[in-house]
Amino acid sequence: MTDIATRVYNHNWKIDPIIRSLLDTDFYKLLMAQTIFRRHRHTRVTFSILNRSRNVRIADLVDEAALREQLDHARTLRLTRGESTWLRGNMFYGKRQMFSPEFIEWFESFRLPPYELRSREGQYELVFEGPWLETTFWEIPALAIVNELRSRAVLKDMGKFELQVLYARAMTRVWEKVQRLKALPGLQIADFGTRRRHGFLWQDWCVQAMQEGLGAAFTGTSNCLIAMRREVEAVGTNAHELPMVYAALAGSDEELAEAPYHVLRDWQEDYEGNLLIILPDTYGSTHFLAEAPEWVADWTGIRIDSKDPIEGGEEAIRWWRERGHDPKTKLAIFSDALDVDAIERIHRHFAGRMRFGFGWGTLLTNDFRGFAANGELDPISIVCKVVSANGRPAVKLSDNPAKAMGPDGLVERYKRVFGIGAQVRREVLV
Amino acid sequence: MTDIATRVYNHNWKIDPIIRSLLDTDFYKLLMAQTIFRRHRHTRVTFSILNRSRNVRIADLVDEAALREQLDHARTLRLTRGESTWLRGNMFYGKRQMFSPEFIEWFESFRLPPYELRSREGQYELVFEGPWLETTFWEIPALAIVNELRSRAVLKDMGKFELQVLYARAMTRVWEKVQRLKALPGLQIADFGTRRRHGFLWQDWCVQAMQEGLGAAFTGTSNCLIAMRREVEAVGTNAHELPMVYAALAGSDEELAEAPYHVLRDWQEDYEGNLLIILPDTYGSTHFLAEAPEWVADWTGIRIDSKDPIEGGEEAIRWWRERGHDPKTKLAIFSDALDVDAIERIHRHFAGRMRFGFGWGTLLTNDFRGFAANGELDPISIVCKVVSANGRPAVKLSDNPAKAMGPDGLVERYKRVFGIGAQVRREVLV
Repeated sequence: MTDIATRVYNHNWKIDPIIRSLLDTDFYKLLMAQTIFRRHRHTRVTFSILNRSRNVRIADLVDEAALREQLDHARTLRLTRGESTWLRGNMFYGKRQMFSPEFIEWFESFRLPPYELRSREGQYELVFEGPWLETTFWEIPALAIVNELRSRAVLKDMGKFELQVLYARAMTRVWEKVQRLKALPGLQIADFGTRRRHGFLWQDWCVQAMQEGLGAAFTGTSNCLIAMRREVEAVGTNAHELPMVYAALAGSDEELAEAPYHVLRDWQEDYEGNLLIILPDTYGSTHFLAEAPEWVADWTGIRIDSKDPIEGGEEAIRWWRERGHDPKTKLAIFSDALDVDAIERIHRHFAGRMRFGFGWGTLLTNDFRGFAANGELDPISIVCKVVSANGRPAVKLSDNPAKAMGPDGLVERYKRVFGIGAQVRREVLV
Repeated sequence: MTDIATRVYNHNWKIDPIIRSLLDTDFYKLLMAQTIFRRHRHTRVTFSILNRSRNVRIADLVDEAALREQLDHARTLRLTRGESTWLRGNMFYGKRQMFSPEFIEWFESFRLPPYELRSREGQYELVFEGPWLETTFWEIPALAIVNELRSRAVLKDMGKFELQVLYARAMTRVWEKVQRLKALPGLQIADFGTRRRHGFLWQDWCVQAMQEGLGAAFTGTSNCLIAMRREVEAVGTNAHELPMVYAALAGSDEELAEAPYHVLRDWQEDYEGNLLIILPDTYGSTHFLAEAPEWVADWTGIRIDSKDPIEGGEEAIRWWRERGHDPKTKLAIFSDALDVDAIERIHRHFAGRMRFGFGWGTLLTNDFRGFAANGELDPISIVCKVVSANGRPAVKLSDNPAKAMGPDGLVERYKRVFGIGAQVRREVLV
């Protein structure tokens, strides 16, 4: 029996919206937004999309009108009553009332702010300008929209049957990865794949695959909506945008040098426990750790996001030991371009030497490599980054110069202030 | 929106019937039935299920009551009006009115006859006794029921998600096989996989995969119901049961020696063109070909079903040449335990030397090898064969002694009459 009502209803949609909830975003955005809400309500920050995979000419693939429709649709969304209830009532990282009533009240009235869009040389320039508290919320949905529209542009030429086999292949691939991960004793792994996912439904499927296949080894998803619906932990802490904005707003070289630690000081006033994860690489991890005040080593752990993971982990272990801490009580989160080979290698290397977990992103939720001609469904390295704060350009150096950004002159100043010498360039896959 | 009506309706089924149509059978059964209808209405033939894979104890896996329910349900089926219309109006092998109005009229009133079922040593003894015209129709549905109940016995312990991945894997495997086949120029291949299929819906999916992936290289399916619904050719010719019954009914050694040719004489009065495919191996191909009357070489082609396919094909080529025919005008159908490796090998070997096609069976519609623990979803070698005709035991020698059957003393007589010396035993996979 065909359900005629459902069919007619489905056909009435003008578009198939990619973002259907303000919670279809990463949990760390909410944590950072609360900090911004408390401390930086008047700071203006501009974010911009950057496709590092220049050879993929997204503007040639994705229709501008379709992109506008999706962005416009995302701007109509408001937090629903059930979503708000979940934020108020759910336990995050073992804690109730993670978000203050004032923040949630503000969030209930929030809508995504305007965007500016134009295309140039086959790429979209998609820019979000406005109060930091508002523009910060575009990062994840904007990336998810661009990525999913790119997928759709390829999928629209495939037959019903080809599509079925495509997803059968992708499911088989994810499941085989999950089976390999299952063999790793004591594994702790979470989904960090919202931003560059193949599509929303696919991420949702991947989360279920992790749930079913890994049980307790699957520690949660960064995606709030999926966490809510699938009743798993919402996970994540903070990102480069905090030190980048603090640094951009710094006046003197001294203030600039202090900015990354200033971020942590604010953060530890707002959060505790497993949310105290240092992200040291914005202006070079080695210098960051060497210059860090004593109390930084008291934090729960460290996220290794752009350095070679073995090197980064060894550096953290040395640093904890130097500061008189037992690495076995500390936690490292690996989150850079992970796939199963790397996870196995890291796991083998550090097993028993410290606590560690993995934030598995793009190669969990968008590994369609080789499934379409000319790599058309291969993931791309696309980011949405802070470009300025209160009109002052932002800079990122990273441990990997391939991920650095900012105006040349300013980069030189940052390198000098943060004592960055020669760096090893590592190819950015995703 | 949940369609409540559909859900309630589905829940009202007492069982999930495996056989839902009398056309869910192989086309050759209808051709043979019409010949039986014309010539042997009073012959009584007993069929019996034989599981050659003795290590798979089907009776321990499949509940007897469930098996009876399925068999009983199959016995309730009658040819529907639309099915009858299709048989009357459809073109088979390029010909309209393949079936006489008398035969179809008889078929419209047909129901599957009673069965006898008991279990012994972990196997079911499932026996069909009665008029040949009726019992012949049990072969395919009985095998399909036993095979699908075995699949279900394994599937019932799997979670929703595991099932999804299982079918994703199976789809990927079939699709990859289809892609390999696509590369073979001039390929002609049909689905012969009804009897040992994993399940009905799965066979239906495999046929669609062949349609979509191979286009004109896919020449049809043996399954009438799927051929009707998917609008593809219904294919197949005849089987060992004809010579086996003719031989069982033969009196003298001379009549016995003549029986296999007697089958062909009757057959060519009833059918023509591509339906004139010799199945020479019932009592040894070599002897059959050597002793065949001249007119047998005028037939369109030959089916190679138990001999090593390269040897069998070479033997056919030699025989056609000896009889003054150009092999390039002749057709060989390979149908024994095929999978892609064998198809590629045979294709490479015979390309350009004769016309040939493939009847791909179990390893198309039931290749779940390795997808469940302990090979629990691996296909088994199960057949439903004639055991007696008018009370006289039936014998099959085959080119492969692993496929021989019949009482020992009688086998010796047949071997003498058909001049069978030493034979090469080839392992029976499916």
